[in-house]
Amino acid sequence: MRTQVAIIGAGPAGLMLGRILERAGVDAVILERRSAEYVLGRIRAGVLEQGSIELLDAVGVGERMHREGLVHDGVELSFDGDTHRLDFTSLINRHVMVYGQTEVTHDLMNARAASGATTIYEASDVRLLDFDGDGARVEYRKDGQTHVLECDFIAGCDGYHGVSRVSVPASALQTFERVYPFGWLGVLIDQPPVADELIYAHHERGFALCSMRSPARSRYYVQVAQSERVEDWSDDRFWDELRSRLNPATAEALKTGASIEKSIAPLRSFVAEPLRFGRLFLAGDAAHIVPPTGAKGLNLAMSDVKALGTALVEYYGEKSAAGIDNYSQTVLRRIWKAERFSWWMTSLLHVFPETGAFGRRIQRAEFDYLTGSHVAQQSLAENYTGLLD
Amino acid sequence: MRTQVAIIGAGPAGLMLGRILERAGVDAVILERRSAEYVLGRIRAGVLEQGSIELLDAVGVGERMHREGLVHDGVELSFDGDTHRLDFTSLINRHVMVYGQTEVTHDLMNARAASGATTIYEASDVRLLDFDGDGARVEYRKDGQTHVLECDFIAGCDGYHGVSRVSVPASALQTFERVYPFGWLGVLIDQPPVADELIYAHHERGFALCSMRSPARSRYYVQVAQSERVEDWSDDRFWDELRSRLNPATAEALKTGASIEKSIAPLRSFVAEPLRFGRLFLAGDAAHIVPPTGAKGLNLAMSDVKALGTALVEYYGEKSAAGIDNYSQTVLRRIWKAERFSWWMTSLLHVFPETGAFGRRIQRAEFDYLTGSHVAQQSLAENYTGLLD
Repeated sequence: MRTQVAIIGAGPAGLMLGRILERAGVDAVILERRSAEYVLGRIRAGVLEQGSIELLDAVGVGERMHREGLVHDGVELSFDGDTHRLDFTSLINRHVMVYGQTEVTHDLMNARAASGATTIYEASDVRLLDFDGDGARVEYRKDGQTHVLECDFIAGCDGYHGVSRVSVPASALQTFERVYPFGWLGVLIDQPPVADELIYAHHERGFALCSMRSPARSRYYVQVAQSERVEDWSDDRFWDELRSRLNPATAEALKTGASIEKSIAPLRSFVAEPLRFGRLFLAGDAAHIVPPTGAKGLNLAMSDVKALGTALVEYYGEKSAAGIDNYSQTVLRRIWKAERFSWWMTSLLHVFPETGAFGRRIQRAEFDYLTGSHVAQQSLAENYTGLLD
Repeated sequence: MRTQVAIIGAGPAGLMLGRILERAGVDAVILERRSAEYVLGRIRAGVLEQGSIELLDAVGVGERMHREGLVHDGVELSFDGDTHRLDFTSLINRHVMVYGQTEVTHDLMNARAASGATTIYEASDVRLLDFDGDGARVEYRKDGQTHVLECDFIAGCDGYHGVSRVSVPASALQTFERVYPFGWLGVLIDQPPVADELIYAHHERGFALCSMRSPARSRYYVQVAQSERVEDWSDDRFWDELRSRLNPATAEALKTGASIEKSIAPLRSFVAEPLRFGRLFLAGDAAHIVPPTGAKGLNLAMSDVKALGTALVEYYGEKSAAGIDNYSQTVLRRIWKAERFSWWMTSLLHVFPETGAFGRRIQRAEFDYLTGSHVAQQSLAENYTGLLD
């Protein structure tokens, strides 16, 4: 089989790239290690920046998002029970959209199915070959047979644990990492959220987040030590811990229930550089990880593949390699700004075991400065809703 | 002898407090361990915020500052040779004034001498007594004799190493500290400054600062390891190191010369809480230290004594203790915001031995975000020129 672009991974990054290419008449095949059902079963948060909303609209898959997504004009920040709302609309006239990553994947998957473009699920033992030469190949196994996909380019959209990044010779790759000394214990319940908007809370017992998937389904998180095991957290223990970290009015209003999902996620900052090696490009989680504070992961993936898709379309349409030559440098600038913001918001809102008394006062001073300064709030708002360049 | 307020220390904080009280008819005596000549011989930088400028004007000692001080409408920031100017005037319509701390001290000292108010220099073995009771006393030795100064209140304006803070029982005081793992090696020369405004430079070899005292006298600094000794730094070595950290055009324009002062200053963040113990108040460096990045030290001292002076005048004039009761809480809010900014600017611009590759990229991303964001620049500008509350 032959295609112009082999896309590794059918998550939101791979599917969106496929969609951009398909609409421009560039041929692409998506290879995915898992089944479509497995991909759709992954529960992920989703706070879409304005740029991501516009991209979904631009490729014609925004219809359900506008119908079912929740427009959020702000967030609430809380520090040891003192709360402050940031209104993005009045600060910078922008907003975000709460619409789960699973839903974005679903919409993109449906659009791809309707277009007839090829997605090969359950493709195992994927190997990326010859991407440093004149033409690349992808080998994979499916239904007991080895297949070869000949291509001009490979787009590695297969996440942090995928094969794409590790296919690059280690000597060609520089990686940057920070592993945070805690995780997020998350609980999903079928109850209305305690507030219409997200509440990010710093408390001396640790960070807490009140979030939601829909008006009837809530998602709550508390910071826990890395050593914690999810089995040790009964629902009751979770709700007690969450309430202790919220201000009393919010704690009282909280509607709890039996958890329908409960898990602990580690927090990590990670960036690989560069993001192009000959005919292989990395995008999304294959290239970088952010801690979930500030919800930049999905949005960065969207802006990566928007840039990559545009560059590839330009390559085929205008016979110009300028876009693909600049891809790595262009997206890394944006990636590092989002890494900085995610790191900063994580640093502000969590309790760090290694932070002494001075550092805790600095966290509080940061909160007090922020809540007292219009321009500092505008700065948070422009980062949260998505930097424009 | 008896007075209403005993002020410990005749630096700019003590002298300014004395000036505020004297103009309101509150009696104060200043005790200073050193001679007037010694105090005036201390060479200190001075970048005055708008609030400090206004305070000097308000107490009638701003005349020479306006004549000789240098109005700065912005600063230049540099990161590995990439430079960006921040224009405070266009960003937030404010500016700062370069006018040395020594000059401020001099003007306040002259005004005090003209007023006939009492300053006792070379007062040794100062002891603060009974400040937790109905009336306080200060004992000191002068000319071989022990003297007693009876007073209503004591204002501890005698700096980090002074007697005031250590007179407070350790159990009543909480301290917060960060010692930075480097110092500033500074050189003073009689040459025009390389630029009209300050240049703050992050370089992979370390921080550098181009500053000035006057149009004919320049002050330059480079970050050095804590272990460095000033004897190991010839003038030539210093200029070579400084040039290597500036962008080529600046390095070439640099006018060097024989140093007339050369020293290494450690960098420290420090805050004591609370700032009132019965009849004793702490103000200025006795209460807090900032690293010099951002030049907040003198300005914080000015805002402390403005608040303390106002509170004491209110106490005597309106028979209200509200001001002195709120002093500690009020000024700590401002102090912590300035501590945060000084810590942040230090963190952005210096090379930290413990910062790995991820942290260095975050510093760069912070610079790139800052130089690309109008609101982030406004945020820096409002902190640099002085927060209004």
